[in-house]
Amino acid sequence: MTKNRLEAFSDGVLAIVITIMVLELRRPEGHSWADLLQLWPVLLSYLISFVFVGIYWTNHHHLMHTVQRVSGGVLWANLHLLFWLSLLPFVTDWAGESHFAPVPMMVYAADALLCALAYSLLVRTIIRTDHNNHLLQDAIGSDLKGNLSLVGYVVALLTPLLGQVGVMVSGGCLILVALMWLIPDRRIERAIEGTGRP
Amino acid sequence: MTKNRLEAFSDGVLAIVITIMVLELRRPEGHSWADLLQLWPVLLSYLISFVFVGIYWTNHHHLMHTVQRVSGGVLWANLHLLFWLSLLPFVTDWAGESHFAPVPMMVYAADALLCALAYSLLVRTIIRTDHNNHLLQDAIGSDLKGNLSLVGYVVALLTPLLGQVGVMVSGGCLILVALMWLIPDRRIERAIEGTGRP
Amino acid sequence: MTKNRLEAFSDGVLAIVITIMVLELRRPEGHSWADLLQLWPVLLSYLISFVFVGIYWTNHHHLMHTVQRVSGGVLWANLHLLFWLSLLPFVTDWAGESHFAPVPMMVYAADALLCALAYSLLVRTIIRTDHNNHLLQDAIGSDLKGNLSLVGYVVALLTPLLGQVGVMVSGGCLILVALMWLIPDRRIERAIEGTGRP
Amino acid sequence: MTKNRLEAFSDGVLAIVITIMVLELRRPEGHSWADLLQLWPVLLSYLISFVFVGIYWTNHHHLMHTVQRVSGGVLWANLHLLFWLSLLPFVTDWAGESHFAPVPMMVYAADALLCALAYSLLVRTIIRTDHNNHLLQDAIGSDLKGNLSLVGYVVALLTPLLGQVGVMVSGGCLILVALMWLIPDRRIERAIEGTGRP
Repeated sequence: MTKNRLEAFSDGVLAIVITIMVLELRRPEGHSWADLLQLWPVLLSYLISFVFVGIYWTNHHHLMHTVQRVSGGVLWANLHLLFWLSLLPFVTDWAGESHFAPVPMMVYAADALLCALAYSLLVRTIIRTDHNNHLLQDAIGSDLKGNLSLVGYVVALLTPLLGQVGVMVSGGCLILVALMWLIPDRRIERAIEGTGRP
Repeated sequence: MTKNRLEAFSDGVLAIVITIMVLELRRPEGHSWADLLQLWPVLLSYLISFVFVGIYWTNHHHLMHTVQRVSGGVLWANLHLLFWLSLLPFVTDWAGESHFAPVPMMVYAADALLCALAYSLLVRTIIRTDHNNHLLQDAIGSDLKGNLSLVGYVVALLTPLLGQVGVMVSGGCLILVALMWLIPDRRIERAIEGTGRP
Repeated sequence: MTKNRLEAFSDGVLAIVITIMVLELRRPEGHSWADLLQLWPVLLSYLISFVFVGIYWTNHHHLMHTVQRVSGGVLWANLHLLFWLSLLPFVTDWAGESHFAPVPMMVYAADALLCALAYSLLVRTIIRTDHNNHLLQDAIGSDLKGNLSLVGYVVALLTPLLGQVGVMVSGGCLILVALMWLIPDRRIERAIEGTGRP
Repeated sequence: MTKNRLEAFSDGVLAIVITIMVLELRRPEGHSWADLLQLWPVLLSYLISFVFVGIYWTNHHHLMHTVQRVSGGVLWANLHLLFWLSLLPFVTDWAGESHFAPVPMMVYAADALLCALAYSLLVRTIIRTDHNNHLLQDAIGSDLKGNLSLVGYVVALLTPLLGQVGVMVSGGCLILVALMWLIPDRRIERAIEGTGRP
């Protein structure tokens, strides 16, 4: 089976997820700067989620680049990842609108954690299917960044239990993990270039 | 006529259908776990419909894989399928919001049944157009899973007439059919691999 | 310039137009059949508009099939067509929600007319750019169906001035034109097959 | 890395941005022409934003045409551009609904300015990555139109400070810049044709 439609469908879903979040940005109630500034939690959560989806898209792009063939199992591991990503507009909206109350923050972090676990599962499913994908196996290696992300998300998930200070720690963790990934996956990029593939 | 744009358009519509359902997930009213848990019928119906669309996408993927040429008739049989799938966000929202009242459940099951019939019609239209598609003809064969699904959907359509117990039977049928299809169509997958095509 | 991205972008916009109309289908207020049936004008206008977009998509598919190269002018003629098509969810919603009041019907017919004129303009822009596209020139020929559509839309635009009976004539015209186009453009299909192209 | 998925994802996001703005067009409250005409500011802002996205799409199309390879940096420069474009439905809705009040106009112009700056950054990132892209380097040259746009957007951003007359100057600037770009980037188009590439 070829990977073209898997890529096209994932691009479609991610493009929609990243864009429809803007539909949850209700217009300010009045026409002044103060009215706009009141929306800061919603705008901030939109920005973070946009970067978050962008990270998944670029990493998915790099990941699929190494893949030669997909199976039914890979299709479903990919849909599983898209499911948790598709909930992002929902958790983003709730977290922003609640001005980052503890429970919505925990739900946001839980969704981020589930996305990360689903991505790991997708990588492992691909490696299992595509036995000859040494490129990906070598590139992933010990997966330091992946493991650090999981730790970050678990911390972000638990700290809101400590109240408002914990929420700020939680938000800080989510932002730190995003910053760490903003540098796209050089491991794979380097490995690909080492082999001289396009 | 080539099949590329039919695939691209179908991927687009399915990606949108699967994603916009999340727009119908209104944020919880308060900021507590209890507020989130109150949404369980809406979240459950979202999950089931996501899997439902995922099943159609993977099966459509496998189906189109066998196709060499499409005619105007195939384009319209495909649009007909997309029409019933496009109603899914509407019936999902109604069923979830009604906490699975009998009539919305019947409407949901009716839409599922119409999708299944439209898919059968698409398969038959392709076989008629693409006379040499022995791959598909052999793979479909007696179509046990397809027929079981139709039975399941008819049961799911009728049992809500029996009241709240019937609704639970109906929901159980819908979930069982979905689980049955979660295993992608090995018949076609196997047939393709037998011929050594990609 | 190649035509791939023009096709991809048009597929994207049409897939979204055809799908987001379902977001305007508000769920019924209660949970009974009567509540669902009250929505008949909205459901009917959704169905007609779905078919309408489907017709443009299949004809666009056939049209682009004949095209070898596109210019900046073709890109903009195509965007112009997409603009009028993108207003369809708006006019559909208004017409349906008003239970087909005269003014919304006239606005719907006006949008249909503008789509048809934009499609003609696109065809003519392509013929001007792509001088060697004899395939398209021969296939279009005297364009009987195109001219009949324009007449139909003008009638549909004017008859609502006569009140409720006129509205029904108007709706009948729109449905008749749609039925006429449901048969995809055999002229081009035949011409393509005559040349043995895929 | 190939550019296909970057194009596909950008097409997806732009198609959604251009189309979901129509969701913000609330239906008129009554069923008369007067009710429709009351929406003129919303319809006008929709039209301008549609043209605005159309301009970015055609220019992006021309730009990517010259590109041979993309890096992680190009992916993120592109996502950065898409971020500012994705805010367009939000600022369009606010500007239209406020009947072009000063602050919403400034926010609209600021978003337009940030899109233009992000586009420049994308062009420069591509030139830095793709050292041999002499085609693009020659075509861009002194970039008169790009610089005029920036001036236009800065004027549009500041003039609303002068009250209602300033708002009209601001709107005029936005429309003038759009008209200037409606002629697609002949510099690149000509350079491509000069090299005989498709």
